[in-house]
Amino acid sequence: MEKASDFETRRARGNALLLKDAPLAIKRFLALDHDAYDDGALPKTTKELLGVVASTVLRCDDCIEYHVRESLEAGTTRDELIEALGIALVAGGSITIPHLRSAMELLEELT
Amino acid sequence: MEKASDFETRRARGNALLLKDAPLAIKRFLALDHDAYDDGALPKTTKELLGVVASTVLRCDDCIEYHVRESLEAGTTRDELIEALGIALVAGGSITIPHLRSAMELLEELT
Amino acid sequence: MEKASDFETRRARGNALLLKDAPLAIKRFLALDHDAYDDGALPKTTKELLGVVASTVLRCDDCIEYHVRESLEAGTTRDELIEALGIALVAGGSITIPHLRSAMELLEELT
Amino acid sequence: MEKASDFETRRARGNALLLKDAPLAIKRFLALDHDAYDDGALPKTTKELLGVVASTVLRCDDCIEYHVRESLEAGTTRDELIEALGIALVAGGSITIPHLRSAMELLEELT
Amino acid sequence: MEKASDFETRRARGNALLLKDAPLAIKRFLALDHDAYDDGALPKTTKELLGVVASTVLRCDDCIEYHVRESLEAGTTRDELIEALGIALVAGGSITIPHLRSAMELLEELT
Amino acid sequence: MEKASDFETRRARGNALLLKDAPLAIKRFLALDHDAYDDGALPKTTKELLGVVASTVLRCDDCIEYHVRESLEAGTTRDELIEALGIALVAGGSITIPHLRSAMELLEELT
Repeated sequence: MEKASDFETRRARGNALLLKDAPLAIKRFLALDHDAYDDGALPKTTKELLGVVASTVLRCDDCIEYHVRESLEAGTTRDELIEALGIALVAGGSITIPHLRSAMELLEELT
Repeated sequence: MEKASDFETRRARGNALLLKDAPLAIKRFLALDHDAYDDGALPKTTKELLGVVASTVLRCDDCIEYHVRESLEAGTTRDELIEALGIALVAGGSITIPHLRSAMELLEELT
Repeated sequence: MEKASDFETRRARGNALLLKDAPLAIKRFLALDHDAYDDGALPKTTKELLGVVASTVLRCDDCIEYHVRESLEAGTTRDELIEALGIALVAGGSITIPHLRSAMELLEELT
Repeated sequence: MEKASDFETRRARGNALLLKDAPLAIKRFLALDHDAYDDGALPKTTKELLGVVASTVLRCDDCIEYHVRESLEAGTTRDELIEALGIALVAGGSITIPHLRSAMELLEELT
Repeated sequence: MEKASDFETRRARGNALLLKDAPLAIKRFLALDHDAYDDGALPKTTKELLGVVASTVLRCDDCIEYHVRESLEAGTTRDELIEALGIALVAGGSITIPHLRSAMELLEELT
Repeated sequence: MEKASDFETRRARGNALLLKDAPLAIKRFLALDHDAYDDGALPKTTKELLGVVASTVLRCDDCIEYHVRESLEAGTTRDELIEALGIALVAGGSITIPHLRSAMELLEELT
């Protein structure tokens, strides 16, 4: 598990690369993805938990890490995050277990 | 879109069939699935929204319908549900659009 | 649930359509798919059960029906099939439940 | 298989429902999805074929139908479409076969 | 490919972390997942092969490794395992090939 | 990102291992997969782009790398590849972003 600063650096570099010479479709998607989790009818905390669960059942470790970090920063507790992971496990099956393990290691480090 | 009572009847009959002569693994899974959405570190309302999003990105209309109905019954508003569907759309892509359409028809009918 | 004869008719018509003017890639794939479940290092019965579980976790009702029918014809029992479905449920999560329900209805009709 | 006019009507009604009271995230996504297939570094014909293959390996019949209709309208031939479906079959496996059958029925009707 | 003892150690540590402070849903799921592969209407050998195929078509290397190790320990032969992987390849498509390569490397090392 | 020669070496070794003692189903699948991208009703360039998009929405980095390399070798430009990735992003959602990042790093290195 890398440090928060390393995660941010790597993510920023990846996105810069993605935006460089990108067609409009990619630029618009990234802007939309960035804005979608802001407070609205649902608070950002709930939306980030939805992001954690979507990322877990679709099994994308990088996406899980991003939404777990955003959740913690927005004030979500470790217990709430673990409970959300439990929903992902029941919905997505044993196939999600390796991703739950990584998420738990990340929580261990960050909280 | 079938009526709530029809949905319940069909679901109950399907589950009865599933439990009849089922091995312990299936029985335990269904019991676990039933309990997982109860109030805990997260309230049932949030957990049902997690269920809506997991079902949408994994593209299971039957599961979406179940969690939308449970959400409404638990007091979640139409606007909150639509916002959760927006997160599923961004995370899961255009491939989820047909499922959003069905969910909107269901909301149209139920709210 | 349609009758076995109807299922066979519909499947045969669909495959004929698929083979008509099909490029070699499709023809070779269908031939390979047909042969893959024959007795080999594993007996056909086991291979058809593998087909049932792959079809269930990937959530393809048509494929489940095909492999359930083949399994029964090859001598697999209803209990063995339900136990295989239990493995698919644990591996693939609650998202597979609607497919287990259809499979149980099919078994109800066929056994 | 419904008629082109019916498909358009149903799709338009579904999208209208989706846009009604939709949060900005959904509105922006639908606009982006609409524009993404326009001519660019790749011609619309190639991009619609990419849409057909993405829809087939992700197994969304509604999406396949949409991109097949757009492809034909843009001048792609039946043979080119079938060859694209062959790539989807090899990449996505036998699990895509039911979707190839529907696509072939649609092509049978439209060409 | 790590040594069996390393795999066991890493897996045990991951599960311990997962169980620590876990909500009941996660604890019950892990217990169920542990018991589901025991002898029943189907022998453990067949059930582990079902686990290998489910893990391969859902493309989870960690899960494949677990079920391959369990299969070998239960007496399944290398040829039987490779034949099961062939079914996964046909059902899941070329997208599973990298996972078949890892599985073959593991078999090379273990048998 | 490894060098082209390393990628080829690793891939060749993996396939040799896969073919060693493989049952006929695996041998036939690999031959079919090899031939499917040759010129036909669609040129190889288009078919490799279909392979890139299928690999991206199904989220297989190894497969993306293979089809990106084949595309470049067949004369497809960097801009065309990025535009194809944009279609994959819209169809498959934010969950594909980490794979787009890797693909962009590969393009950075190869073009």
